Amino acid sequence: MTELPEQQMEEDKSVQPQVEIEEGDAFGLGDEHVNDVREHLRDGNEEAVRDLFEELHYADAADVVQQLKPEDRTKVLQIVGDDLEPEVWSELDQDILEEVVYEIGAGTVARALAEMDSDDALAVIEELDEEDQKEVLEAMPHGERAVLMEGLSFPEDSAGRLMQRDLVAVPAFWTVGETLDYLRSDVDLPEDFYEIFVVDPKHKPLGTVPLSQLMRNKRPVRVGNLMEEQLTTIPVGTDQEEVAFIFRDRDLVSAPVVDDNGRLLGVITIDDVVDVIDEEHEEDIMRMGGVTQDEFYSSALDAAKSRVWWLVVNLGTAIVASMVIGLFSATIEQLVALAVLMPIVASMGGNAGTQTLTIAVRAIAMKELTPANAMRVVGKEIAVGAMNGVIFAILIGLATWAWFQDPALASVIAVAMIVNMVVAGLAGALIPVALDRYGADPAISSSVFLTTVTDVVGFFAFLGLAALFLLG
Amino acid sequence: MTELPEQQMEEDKSVQPQVEIEEGDAFGLGDEHVNDVREHLRDGNEEAVRDLFEELHYADAADVVQQLKPEDRTKVLQIVGDDLEPEVWSELDQDILEEVVYEIGAGTVARALAEMDSDDALAVIEELDEEDQKEVLEAMPHGERAVLMEGLSFPEDSAGRLMQRDLVAVPAFWTVGETLDYLRSDVDLPEDFYEIFVVDPKHKPLGTVPLSQLMRNKRPVRVGNLMEEQLTTIPVGTDQEEVAFIFRDRDLVSAPVVDDNGRLLGVITIDDVVDVIDEEHEEDIMRMGGVTQDEFYSSALDAAKSRVWWLVVNLGTAIVASMVIGLFSATIEQLVALAVLMPIVASMGGNAGTQTLTIAVRAIAMKELTPANAMRVVGKEIAVGAMNGVIFAILIGLATWAWFQDPALASVIAVAMIVNMVVAGLAGALIPVALDRYGADPAISSSVFLTTVTDVVGFFAFLGLAALFLLG
Repeated sequence: MTELPEQQMEEDKSVQPQVEIEEGDAFGLGDEHVNDVREHLRDGNEEAVRDLFEELHYADAADVVQQLKPEDRTKVLQIVGDDLEPEVWSELDQDILEEVVYEIGAGTVARALAEMDSDDALAVIEELDEEDQKEVLEAMPHGERAVLMEGLSFPEDSAGRLMQRDLVAVPAFWTVGETLDYLRSDVDLPEDFYEIFVVDPKHKPLGTVPLSQLMRNKRPVRVGNLMEEQLTTIPVGTDQEEVAFIFRDRDLVSAPVVDDNGRLLGVITIDDVVDVIDEEHEEDIMRMGGVTQDEFYSSALDAAKSRVWWLVVNLGTAIVASMVIGLFSATIEQLVALAVLMPIVASMGGNAGTQTLTIAVRAIAMKELTPANAMRVVGKEIAVGAMNGVIFAILIGLATWAWFQDPALASVIAVAMIVNMVVAGLAGALIPVALDRYGADPAISSSVFLTTVTDVVGFFAFLGLAALFLLG
Repeated sequence: MTELPEQQMEEDKSVQPQVEIEEGDAFGLGDEHVNDVREHLRDGNEEAVRDLFEELHYADAADVVQQLKPEDRTKVLQIVGDDLEPEVWSELDQDILEEVVYEIGAGTVARALAEMDSDDALAVIEELDEEDQKEVLEAMPHGERAVLMEGLSFPEDSAGRLMQRDLVAVPAFWTVGETLDYLRSDVDLPEDFYEIFVVDPKHKPLGTVPLSQLMRNKRPVRVGNLMEEQLTTIPVGTDQEEVAFIFRDRDLVSAPVVDDNGRLLGVITIDDVVDVIDEEHEEDIMRMGGVTQDEFYSSALDAAKSRVWWLVVNLGTAIVASMVIGLFSATIEQLVALAVLMPIVASMGGNAGTQTLTIAVRAIAMKELTPANAMRVVGKEIAVGAMNGVIFAILIGLATWAWFQDPALASVIAVAMIVNMVVAGLAGALIPVALDRYGADPAISSSVFLTTVTDVVGFFAFLGLAALFLLG
């Protein structure tokens, strides 16, 4: 730790940090502020609402706004809408934002956007549908509107949309002293920046000088001699998930964005990438659960509509599995215990297969599972399926024997269990690898294929073996 | 964009950025380097292996090391182990790391750790088991060992483990000029830093001055007048997931870590938090898939062992569901179509319930679902369940009628479908809310409870209604 030498320090008026976190605190509001706001609204006390919002950090203010009932939300925004810190708007969910534009009007939103950094403003405006976008843009001052429209010209979810246009770029022959003087002059600097870009006469990035480096060197040193040259540049059309991967892979804090000619256009900083990473993960979780978007703030009807297609697909695969059972109707009629036990085999296969699938899909995304080691991985998963298959074959065999006193039935279900769990391991590894090889996104469709396989194989193996060995 | 005034710029030798990303590139190695390394090893060409690793960025070097077969990995590390950039070691998966310590010895690892920043070195050493930890620590130089041991004294996954001890702290009465002189003196500075901390005589943080602010002000200005006072301080024992939430909620780039007396201990920067966020998300995905840890690099036996308990729990719930079917054995014997159709009702309930659960668990984690709006959310999910329930009741009713030409059966399955999908919505929302209220982590156990409920209710409703209305 860097300490200053022992010396008499002037007694400063101690300024308390304004936000103290207690260990174990549930960070965030809970109900308090929301209930207070509701009370003030009921009492018609606009002053109190204004005071309350004055005190709040923008993240908490956004939380309150989102947790209110729609009618209360409209009233609150009519009271404080123009006074909210601009950042509150970037924290609002898309559905809430559209509701707000509708209720409060484009003017308030436009005024807020005009005060924000261009990348944050762009993040807000791209959430709106086309009509609202037009309204808000038309209500904005000319200069800010131009920047946003240029941002919107880049493909959605690309580096062009994430980047901050304001940056500091100097030629390599400038010295530390000249650079510092430049920064202290009346020039229009970005709000926060962590490094200086060094560019050639064609405005192509040559390297960067982190501020921490700039500061520890004396005035006559040339920035060209200080700069870090191993520079990862990002083409402006790069997809944001690729950008996030690059940042994580290279431990970057920021990276220059270049156009097709390699000229510097802007910079992406890690706080933007953190938002992308969060979005990405949210999508992953949603997809695994069969949900296509976060409709937490949507109406019940919109939520139902957004969920129905995934359910239709699953209905289809469930019917396919039932058709397999249908093939063995006669068998089941003769031994109804089969109907009682068959879902166990199918579902254990599904669970084991899902475990394999989860590991494989992640490894593909992290580029750890590649053609170089794919066969080794599939082999390992078959082995895991066999090992656990034997364990559960024993468990279910014993349970069946105890339940139905039928050792032959117990043996049949045991064998079916091993078969299904080995197939589950194989399918759970192969399906995503195959989808990835053919250019499809393994995360989306793998689970549907997998559960179809484990259901069909599970029912077929169990009922088929039963038909062969227990009856006729 | 900040541009420099038009002026004649010296023609610099153009230095090409060393890493160019093409749009659409699959970032990462694929097979090339791994295959090259294998070839060189087969030819016994150690020189070529050394040359290859010289060229690689540390992230790519780690990828190669991980994708090799264990025997090849050992040979490669014997050749290049001492020359690898220290960062390669932080990129290695835990299983690989343990294998390496075993094969290559603690000395090589200790030498690498001694060169790393304390927080990165700590992240590596905490992955090792106790015995390996001791070996490696003993092989390290005294000073670095002390820092690591102090880091290990903090609870696992806490702020104390994430923080960087090196930072710059100055008193409030220092000026910009005095601070710059200090930074340029021979003092031991952290490698990268983005701000200066301002502390009181008791070494408690008063505020921060981002370097970008420090630089744009003239020498006589006091840092106390420049500092941002709204400071989020993090107690050293705070759990890392809470730290990540705070960083995201407040859009922080770094935050000071304090001890129980409020004295500044260290700083956490956002790149460390990004690692935590990634870990967190990986855990979320693993959990949803029924996997407890990433055993991609583990042996088949270890992977099987780590997966077995989840499967045991699911076997238990599957047997419970089968017992419900068992209650209706007589009913099924009379109408075997019931056995064919019953899995459809159960699985649709499971799918719909999982959709609700996914949305609810996420909303709880994002602190969007709180007691303030819980009942409204449950009500919405019941409505969604009813709407989609009706749609799928119609679909399955028609399918059943077409398949079995039995309108009474079709009606029974239609009603059972509505019942199960409404129950699924209710359960999918209530279960995580209840678990959260009682202090349990909703993400872990919710799905087991949910599928038990949808299976039991699905079978019971369908077979029960069939017994009541179709038979006897």
